[in-house]
Amino acid sequence: MADARRIFEYPETFRMRRGGELERPTIAYETWGELSPSCDNAVLLFTGLSPSAHASSSPEDPAPGWWEEILGPSRPIDSNRYFVICMNSLGSCFGSTGPATTDPATGEPYRLTFPVVTLEDVASAGKALVSHLGIDRLEAVVGASMGGMTALAFAMLFSGSTRGLLLISSAMHSRPFAIALRSLQREMIRRDPAWRDGNYPLGEGPVTGMRLARKLGMITYRSALEWQHRFGRERVAEEHQSGDPFALEFEIESYLEAHAQKFIGQYDANCYLYLSRAMDLFDVAEHRGTIAAGLATLDAERAMIVGVTSDSLFPIEQQRHLADELKSVGVAVDYRELESIQGHDSFLVDMDRFQPTVQSFFSTD
Amino acid sequence: MADARRIFEYPETFRMRRGGELERPTIAYETWGELSPSCDNAVLLFTGLSPSAHASSSPEDPAPGWWEEILGPSRPIDSNRYFVICMNSLGSCFGSTGPATTDPATGEPYRLTFPVVTLEDVASAGKALVSHLGIDRLEAVVGASMGGMTALAFAMLFSGSTRGLLLISSAMHSRPFAIALRSLQREMIRRDPAWRDGNYPLGEGPVTGMRLARKLGMITYRSALEWQHRFGRERVAEEHQSGDPFALEFEIESYLEAHAQKFIGQYDANCYLYLSRAMDLFDVAEHRGTIAAGLATLDAERAMIVGVTSDSLFPIEQQRHLADELKSVGVAVDYRELESIQGHDSFLVDMDRFQPTVQSFFSTD
Repeated sequence: MADARRIFEYPETFRMRRGGELERPTIAYETWGELSPSCDNAVLLFTGLSPSAHASSSPEDPAPGWWEEILGPSRPIDSNRYFVICMNSLGSCFGSTGPATTDPATGEPYRLTFPVVTLEDVASAGKALVSHLGIDRLEAVVGASMGGMTALAFAMLFSGSTRGLLLISSAMHSRPFAIALRSLQREMIRRDPAWRDGNYPLGEGPVTGMRLARKLGMITYRSALEWQHRFGRERVAEEHQSGDPFALEFEIESYLEAHAQKFIGQYDANCYLYLSRAMDLFDVAEHRGTIAAGLATLDAERAMIVGVTSDSLFPIEQQRHLADELKSVGVAVDYRELESIQGHDSFLVDMDRFQPTVQSFFSTD
Repeated sequence: MADARRIFEYPETFRMRRGGELERPTIAYETWGELSPSCDNAVLLFTGLSPSAHASSSPEDPAPGWWEEILGPSRPIDSNRYFVICMNSLGSCFGSTGPATTDPATGEPYRLTFPVVTLEDVASAGKALVSHLGIDRLEAVVGASMGGMTALAFAMLFSGSTRGLLLISSAMHSRPFAIALRSLQREMIRRDPAWRDGNYPLGEGPVTGMRLARKLGMITYRSALEWQHRFGRERVAEEHQSGDPFALEFEIESYLEAHAQKFIGQYDANCYLYLSRAMDLFDVAEHRGTIAAGLATLDAERAMIVGVTSDSLFPIEQQRHLADELKSVGVAVDYRELESIQGHDSFLVDMDRFQPTVQSFFSTD
């Protein structure tokens, strides 16, 4: 299989923010474009909870990436102009060290012995990676959803490390509605007997729990209005119906089932649990006591904050709040509200709105 | 235990709308107030998915009911003036025949041999009950959530049977967002190994699945804004935390856990599955092909439609739509939008808004 993935091995012990450490963890990443001789054209992209580092295709790996229409030659994040790095989050399972990785001390997967992961840890791994690549100061750090929170953590922790910040459908902390949903997703996985208290054989995890969690994710990542437009009360074809009184009957049920089936097997359950929790824990105000104090160290010159009005998970008020707080610490903020109906996931699918928005961030550079 | 519950035994075979039949099913109900000699002061109350017929306390059963502040002497539905009947839905498990009831033909619980339940069946059982009580025409039929859908079915099916209609946080059909959530709740229950394809020993059902389903219900019955006001990012007391990396940490998680624990054990899982599905299936447009044709037989004189702006399950647009359609078939409609922040469940908790609203329906009589 074609693979554009590179592996960076952290050269020493990596200390985790909430305690514990990892012995020389690895960070998987991909890059697009060329680093300029003065190393001043680099863009770092942090991902949401589930993607790998494969954000876009490249000659080495022509498979479409998860942000294919946004990143690449002559695309909004233009790899003819920028050297773009996307990394697989620490704690994930696509090449970076996480709970499914073998612990060198025991020869067994870490599983639940893995230390608590915070988004600050993911950001720190990103800082180590860009330093390793010879980059002192990035042109921009970019992230959507969990990736936006990670990008914000990066900018707070590593003052001077980036000139720009592009944060999409993100937040300074999670609200209880989002925490409740993620807590329930985790419980679905943990209550699946196949989870075995985290000790399932790798590759044979809690398939049922993951399927349920994914469906709840899909329901909340999109919007009720989108489902209404797409599915209404359409029924599945008669031939797919069975004698089961609770068989799938509506198209929306069949759609969720098909997508959940695609997801399970791809993602390790324990990695999902750790990164899901990391989103709950993140809170700008925990850096030095208040939001204002937390953001005070952030010295990006400019930021674009993008929110979507139909997002119920990271609602538009949280985007406004983030934009206002960044302005008050002196960042030049371009705040955008997009009317996409695809909810939290709009950045992945509503290219008519997101391509020009991301483009304008990089063209007003 | 004090019990105000009465049982009506349907005197013959009850034919179900989607096929199948029940041999002399029972309907549990309670009443408040006195029926007038001319039988013209009766109000019928249909419930949401989970309540029993015990809507309010009475001398025979002083325990508070699920709509205690709304129904009783000198309360908005005034039992000094009206003879109020609340019935446990057909298919439920609080005295009315449902999947947990013994099938007289086999001596075993019906379980999944129970025929598909529709809200039209529940409405028909209600019609049989009021006829049995000597009532030809009701002063009003009242329902919230599933109860509102059932009340609407009643008014469509039994033309001339009611003068008034009070429908709260209800709809002419479910939208795919609500269907998706309920489908997922059912799947949580059905994937629990303790469900045993519906054949669990009664009283020892799929506790885990029911707990998960209840939590998802609670998250979606309320609103994100309410959680934000009530819980923010409050943590549970340190002493409740354990070594488990996924232990409850936020107050919102602890709140949901406590409430889910209260629910499980009270409600039979198969009954829940049947009534949940009945809500998905209900569609005014299936009565004679279109909404307008479906509503054409409805000859109530007046209706009040009440919606809550923070309701994500039965959103305010559905209330407006229902009000408009009822007007267009000649019903005098009083349409009310309430600004409660408690979402779909507001009718159970926001008494400051709901008491005067229900009161005004009955006082402009």
